[in-house]
Amino acid sequence: MSIKIGILGYGNLGRGVEKAVNVCDDMELVGVFSRRDPANVKVDSNAPVYHVDSLPEMTDKIDVLIICGGSATDLPEMTPKYAKLFNVIDSFDTHARIPVHFANVDKAAKKAGKIGIISCGWDPGMFSLNRLYAHAVLPGGKDYTFWGKGVSQGHSDAIRRIEGVIDARQYTVPVPEALEKVRKGQNPELTTREKHTRVCYVVAEEGADKARIEKEIVTMPNYFADYDTSVNFISAEEMKANHSGLPHGGSVIYSGTTGSGDDLNKHVIEYSLNLDSNPEFTGSVLTAYARAAYRMNQSGDAGAKTVFDVAPALLSPLSGDEIRAHML
Amino acid sequence: MSIKIGILGYGNLGRGVEKAVNVCDDMELVGVFSRRDPANVKVDSNAPVYHVDSLPEMTDKIDVLIICGGSATDLPEMTPKYAKLFNVIDSFDTHARIPVHFANVDKAAKKAGKIGIISCGWDPGMFSLNRLYAHAVLPGGKDYTFWGKGVSQGHSDAIRRIEGVIDARQYTVPVPEALEKVRKGQNPELTTREKHTRVCYVVAEEGADKARIEKEIVTMPNYFADYDTSVNFISAEEMKANHSGLPHGGSVIYSGTTGSGDDLNKHVIEYSLNLDSNPEFTGSVLTAYARAAYRMNQSGDAGAKTVFDVAPALLSPLSGDEIRAHML
Repeated sequence: MSIKIGILGYGNLGRGVEKAVNVCDDMELVGVFSRRDPANVKVDSNAPVYHVDSLPEMTDKIDVLIICGGSATDLPEMTPKYAKLFNVIDSFDTHARIPVHFANVDKAAKKAGKIGIISCGWDPGMFSLNRLYAHAVLPGGKDYTFWGKGVSQGHSDAIRRIEGVIDARQYTVPVPEALEKVRKGQNPELTTREKHTRVCYVVAEEGADKARIEKEIVTMPNYFADYDTSVNFISAEEMKANHSGLPHGGSVIYSGTTGSGDDLNKHVIEYSLNLDSNPEFTGSVLTAYARAAYRMNQSGDAGAKTVFDVAPALLSPLSGDEIRAHML
Repeated sequence: MSIKIGILGYGNLGRGVEKAVNVCDDMELVGVFSRRDPANVKVDSNAPVYHVDSLPEMTDKIDVLIICGGSATDLPEMTPKYAKLFNVIDSFDTHARIPVHFANVDKAAKKAGKIGIISCGWDPGMFSLNRLYAHAVLPGGKDYTFWGKGVSQGHSDAIRRIEGVIDARQYTVPVPEALEKVRKGQNPELTTREKHTRVCYVVAEEGADKARIEKEIVTMPNYFADYDTSVNFISAEEMKANHSGLPHGGSVIYSGTTGSGDDLNKHVIEYSLNLDSNPEFTGSVLTAYARAAYRMNQSGDAGAKTVFDVAPALLSPLSGDEIRAHML
């Protein structure tokens, strides 16, 4: 029997989930749900497309609804709303608002007897898991998170809003010297500027004032002002040829100790990702956790969960005997 | 209220657990239990030492018994035996015998209403978790495990049994070219020899036949014959000065894909450990999972478990609110 999956929202992330669901033998993609007119949504697989308004009629046809919306306005409203009807899962990543989002989803999901997994993906998600495991095993150590080299869509969008910019791509790049110190267990104190640089590729309008565009980028508060930022003007052709992918990745590095005094021993734990496609990897993580959401609900559990609450075995399509034999 | 911990067996691993328990504010070390005469066991902390025979009288004083024995003969007998009396946890690492060991511990623990976590540490343990997470997120990929650079105690012991050898230390070292190919996602097929080399430091008796010792090492079946092995004869002083630690570590590297055809995207996931002390890190992992064993039992669960069955949140002394706020 397959786990019946619905996808709500069909941008880059929704497409990534679609690809992931379609390689899982124990899952069936029931449909893609969109706020757009379904006639105008072309999906990669042969899954049917429905308008989002038809979701309430499909509660008996969907085991888990994977919600692929934005954290700013979509998910705070959508995830609690649909947790009243389905097991749901999202990739909510606005860190400061996680407690409120968790509480809202928890209330709705508990009342409905459903599971709602929030903040799933790689950060928050796989990176969070590695912070937790490391802190639990070696209490009192220090964790560092480096992102990149990879495309930040938020920063790319910010550049595109500048007058005279046609297109832009921003790469977040860890500073090699900082990475090196952390990997050696030196526990450095690092400022924002010392951890990452920002590299921008910009297609400007014909005759645009490139000096002004560059200045607007490097001085932009929150996005660029606290970083060493480099700006490269390129042609639209070069943008398409060399910067059309959405690679990303990074590392969580934890440095801790055992013993004390002359017997102090250092230990460094590193988890790193090198991803050709950020949305496809994130979609794959959401899909694995959708399996867990279904199983947790089948075993009688309800309420909001995060990756911290999910036993790893629940993510695998294999049996307990199989995972112990092949992966332990 | 503290979780009351007992340690059974006081070798390198038992000492590592003792150090780990003593830095956990929510734990109390009730005692160290040994097959030796307690009068002859000097422990690092001020924990009392008991003879192993007094364990059955202490069922109401110990919440979790951490069993620090060898996988060859100790654990197959000890873990099921003490699972009848306590929540237990071990580091059983004889891979082929895990299914039988799991079944034996499961039977005893279920009957007693206790939890028995087996095969805990870093491999099996943290490495296993990373194999499972990666396979679940990106089905159909390939995992590689590299060990080292680190001391293999089994291989060091094997050299010490050769006539004319006073002391020996064997380092397992990953082959850099193999690591490089795997990190690039090239999915190479690697023989045993292509993955690791073995580097040996040997203190020989005065006048011993070094050529014969070297030949016996490099041709030893199972241990060395399938590897490129180098043998270095050193003095007892040099052994003590440069090779008295027990560092270890390694990497689990997983290479998987999303999409297909022209849209194929590669993803590489790496988890690596760089440990100054293998037994102290392993002891720290066992201690974190002892916390989980206690909590799982408190919530009414019983039977044999592995790291796959333990929700990560159960390992942390912090509350759900705290871990979501600080680590998600």
